[in-house]
Amino acid sequence: ALQSMMREFHYADVAEIADELNVEEATYLIKLLDSEKTSDILAEMHEDIREAVLKNLTAKEIADELSELDTDDAADIINELPKELIQEVISEIEDREHAKDIVDLLRYEDDSAGGLMAKELVKVNENWTVTTCVKEMRAQAENVTRVHSIYVVDDEGKLKGRLSLKDLLTTSTKTHIKDVYIAKVDAVNVNEKGEEVAKIMSKYDLEAIPVVDEIGRLVGRITIDDIVDVIREEADRDYQMAAGISQGVEADDSIWELTRARLPWLILGLLGGLGAAAIMGGFEEMISKHAVLFYFTPLIAAMAGNVGVQSSAIIVQGLANDDLKGSVSHRLIKEMLLALLNGLILALLLLLFTWIWKGAFATALAISLSLVVVIVVAGLIGTFIPLFLHKRNIDPAIATGPFITTSNDIFGILIYFWIAKLILGI
Amino acid sequence: ALQSMMREFHYADVAEIADELNVEEATYLIKLLDSEKTSDILAEMHEDIREAVLKNLTAKEIADELSELDTDDAADIINELPKELIQEVISEIEDREHAKDIVDLLRYEDDSAGGLMAKELVKVNENWTVTTCVKEMRAQAENVTRVHSIYVVDDEGKLKGRLSLKDLLTTSTKTHIKDVYIAKVDAVNVNEKGEEVAKIMSKYDLEAIPVVDEIGRLVGRITIDDIVDVIREEADRDYQMAAGISQGVEADDSIWELTRARLPWLILGLLGGLGAAAIMGGFEEMISKHAVLFYFTPLIAAMAGNVGVQSSAIIVQGLANDDLKGSVSHRLIKEMLLALLNGLILALLLLLFTWIWKGAFATALAISLSLVVVIVVAGLIGTFIPLFLHKRNIDPAIATGPFITTSNDIFGILIYFWIAKLILGI
Ligand SMILES: [Mg+2]
Ligand SMILES: [Mg+2]
Ligand SMILES: [Mg+2]
Ligand SMILES: [Mg+2]
Ligand SMILES: [Mg+2]
Ligand SMILES: [Mg+2]
Ligand SMILES: [Mg+2]
Ligand SMILES: [Mg+2]
Ligand SMILES: [Mg+2]
Ligand SMILES: [Mg+2]
Ligand SMILES: [Mg+2]
Ligand SMILES: [Mg+2]
Ligand SMILES: [Mg+2]
Repeated sequence: ALQSMMREFHYADVAEIADELNVEEATYLIKLLDSEKTSDILAEMHEDIREAVLKNLTAKEIADELSELDTDDAADIINELPKELIQEVISEIEDREHAKDIVDLLRYEDDSAGGLMAKELVKVNENWTVTTCVKEMRAQAENVTRVHSIYVVDDEGKLKGRLSLKDLLTTSTKTHIKDVYIAKVDAVNVNEKGEEVAKIMSKYDLEAIPVVDEIGRLVGRITIDDIVDVIREEADRDYQMAAGISQGVEADDSIWELTRARLPWLILGLLGGLGAAAIMGGFEEMISKHAVLFYFTPLIAAMAGNVGVQSSAIIVQGLANDDLKGSVSHRLIKEMLLALLNGLILALLLLLFTWIWKGAFATALAISLSLVVVIVVAGLIGTFIPLFLHKRNIDPAIATGPFITTSNDIFGILIYFWIAKLILGI
Repeated sequence: ALQSMMREFHYADVAEIADELNVEEATYLIKLLDSEKTSDILAEMHEDIREAVLKNLTAKEIADELSELDTDDAADIINELPKELIQEVISEIEDREHAKDIVDLLRYEDDSAGGLMAKELVKVNENWTVTTCVKEMRAQAENVTRVHSIYVVDDEGKLKGRLSLKDLLTTSTKTHIKDVYIAKVDAVNVNEKGEEVAKIMSKYDLEAIPVVDEIGRLVGRITIDDIVDVIREEADRDYQMAAGISQGVEADDSIWELTRARLPWLILGLLGGLGAAAIMGGFEEMISKHAVLFYFTPLIAAMAGNVGVQSSAIIVQGLANDDLKGSVSHRLIKEMLLALLNGLILALLLLLFTWIWKGAFATALAISLSLVVVIVVAGLIGTFIPLFLHKRNIDPAIATGPFITTSNDIFGILIYFWIAKLILGI
């Protein structure tokens, strides 16, 4: 009954169900059903649960599952296995061609074009005739879920272009491929970053892109479904980084994993807070005369933080989408004007409010004027830091979040007390 | 020369170049080249520049460009035109069938399946024979860049399933389609949200999905390239929302547009800061005895903000990816334990540091104990608010950012002084 029910479902749905099961149940499911279906379920399952399930399978059983998968998914799963098991599993894969392809893929970085590509593709030699070509293609296409494009290579395996199916079918059978192929084809290098591949495929609306090695040989193909996953994961990571969470955790990870991802940034915040406390300690004599100034430190810190996060988010996003035009100084001038405009509006509101509330105009003015300066400086820091990190090849996304809020807290409070001191003449 | 140069480039590249030109140059480019190419360039161009260029074209010129575009892109461009021009442009489109399709698309929400779909697709009637089918398909396929799937409909236009090209080619020409089609096909409703369509297509690895109306009639088709754009835009919007920026601005928007997007959240922060100041005013008598407590308010506010942002980001992301399991109370208990663990570690660090620095153990203890409580409350608020918003059908992403930092500033400071008062017995 379970068997027939599961056959009705799409493997992605079964994988979702499996994620809710305990390890014994999930293992039972995988062992029960045919690996033609369970292999896809395994590939779609949550990493943690897959890892646990695979521990209950023999090398032979794992090899059977991998035999049914495309090489890219098989390689990803093998990479999660303990080192000593990898060798054994690979030797158990019956189709030696498939095993070789998987081994080829193991050496690429997860996040590179090589780590994303599959070996499944259709390629023809430019020296073949149309007849040979059609025959060879038919064999190759059996292993490929979606053909997308027919790639043309030379005798050394270098990618030369692609073949239109229509041209192939309308030319005489003795014509050589080199006389009919289209010499233009988008391709990416095997070491290209995943994020870059995503940009290219989304810009040119591609559903598949061939991957070439350092000397231009066709080594694999990346399909859009895997790029969609890259885009989503990348977005999740950036969002988390901006919130002060490192290393890609999920809500259902353990408290320990979540602590490891969150605590470092909180310690940074703690140090920042201690810095701010130290600064305020330096203005001790002011507390007796103008205690009210101290009431406004959270406001100043909050505004410095918010403005800094806003500016850095816009820069981080502009960098990610490649649509930042103009020089760094242009950016800084624009942000300064923007911060000045916002700062003046906010300071005016603050001035009116504080004046009415506390009655002390000089103090209210000191607080409001500092706010303008603090906002401008915060905006400049928020703009400059991500640009600087980007120049140094550090992911600028790290700048939006605790890093900016912490440094802006400190600078904000320093500037605030310093200006207040000047204005109030203490 | 320009003409031949531009012909060599991909339209997406030309569109990028055009974004850097001034309006006159861009208009010249669009008028100069053939609309077969310029239509695609227009569709890929930055919205603001396209709008400016279209102002310089006559209704006839715009209609010529739209005639070359797929209906989804044409409808998007028409939607940007001033109301009074829309009628005129549509009447200038020569292919009346194309014009009718575009008009059909105009009534759907931008962000819905209807707003994303195109009318270009290949569909056959279940009552046709294979011969009729092949003939009709050939005509339809001329307008479709990529066929992906052949959809089968009944006499009322209701989507019944899809047809495999292989089955079509291997059955006798007199067979009726209803005897060979596959009755299973994923489809989305025309009113489905774009974000939901993206989830479905990415889950099932689809490259195209048919769209049906309320009574199941096939009305259009969504392709993965447009869904890739939806995913990217959605991610950008969430990131900005978390940074306190509303309404999707870009680095190159005007200072005025940027101010409108940023100022509301800053005003919220200002009000929060005033709230914090008011709270501190209520603890005035403490300032004379324990001035040092006031030095730590930015630290308390910062920690409350950071913890709140971290917890809410994890919940927002879990909700977006549909992978939050368990009940609300389970979430809150887990977050409480997590916050308690982090809070104790941080409080211990703070205690040691403050004790050594200031020498006053009672004060140091009061500050550290408050920190634990503040962190736990901040974590609970950060977990609860997005869950609550989600239940009320408000986008929870709004919770990560100024909203959380502001409320946590206030609560944090209130709790801090209250506990300090208790412990120090003032
Ligand atoms: Mg199995
Ligand atoms: Mg891989
Ligand atoms: Mg695109
Ligand atoms: Mg496009
Ligand atoms: Mg794949
Ligand atoms: Mg990134
Ligand atoms: Mg803050
Ligand atoms: Mg033109
Ligand atoms: Mg639309
Ligand atoms: Mg997928
Ligand atoms: Mg997949
Ligand atoms: Mg489209
Ligand atoms: Mg969202």
